[in-house]
Amino acid sequence: MSPEERLAGVLAARGLTIAVAESCTGGLISSRITDVAGASAYFLAGLVTYSNEAKEALLSVPRDLLMAKGAVSREVAGAMAEGVRRATGADVGLSVTGIAGPGGGTEEKPVGTVYMGLSAGTDCPVRCHRFEGDRASIKQQSADGALEFVLAYLEGGLR
Amino acid sequence: MSPEERLAGVLAARGLTIAVAESCTGGLISSRITDVAGASAYFLAGLVTYSNEAKEALLSVPRDLLMAKGAVSREVAGAMAEGVRRATGADVGLSVTGIAGPGGGTEEKPVGTVYMGLSAGTDCPVRCHRFEGDRASIKQQSADGALEFVLAYLEGGLR
Repeated sequence: MSPEERLAGVLAARGLTIAVAESCTGGLISSRITDVAGASAYFLAGLVTYSNEAKEALLSVPRDLLMAKGAVSREVAGAMAEGVRRATGADVGLSVTGIAGPGGGTEEKPVGTVYMGLSAGTDCPVRCHRFEGDRASIKQQSADGALEFVLAYLEGGLR
Repeated sequence: MSPEERLAGVLAARGLTIAVAESCTGGLISSRITDVAGASAYFLAGLVTYSNEAKEALLSVPRDLLMAKGAVSREVAGAMAEGVRRATGADVGLSVTGIAGPGGGTEEKPVGTVYMGLSAGTDCPVRCHRFEGDRASIKQQSADGALEFVLAYLEGGLR
């Protein structure tokens, strides 16, 4: 069973809704979640906030935070997850922000650096990955990682 | 060259930005646009508004219109395109709303009914398609159709 099919089962069983804020995955996570027939029962919305302006306007990520930490950071991943949850009223907010390449990498944050955030209840855990590969591969690995992240949380394995 | 690569060329050449509002395509159009390296130069945001509430809250589609015409309608496609353009400040707004199935079809609007809207300058053209196939195929055809729609408009073939 694919991660998006497992997610469908877990959300439906617990009566939870989800919303997603995506940067480097560019809509791929939302697209995979909505590949599952009946996703409208638990998927409220996906916000693909590619620019800093979109992160501010649509997710209420503070400009100061974007300037101080950078769009690809633990702090902004957390703020995006909380922002999309607040904007949509979903039970669970999931976010991804990273550098898919080939441009945009730095020594400190090379191409493949990806942060993922979750907002649920009073929790806001964040994960960081360093993926290898080309743009398409990093996008796929990021989407897989984010779906596994929310599954681990909801299935109780994440502490 | 893929439609998303052609779109990259046309937008870059004319210095235009785009934002996308998706319902039945679920993020696939945004994902394809951002498959192209450097998309951040012209792609501002994608809003995957799966629920009516998200269409109202994120795209300012009037509730009366949703109730009177239905989420899958010419009028809502137009309002979504205008809404995403307004919400993001993009030069071009592109929208898709339809019934990917397998559920949700009616006699008047069977599975595969898909409306696409554009907002650019003072124009707001809308197209309607009746696609055949399963959920995945209708999603793909809708994304292809929407990319071809905006290309035809920008390349001047659409009148």
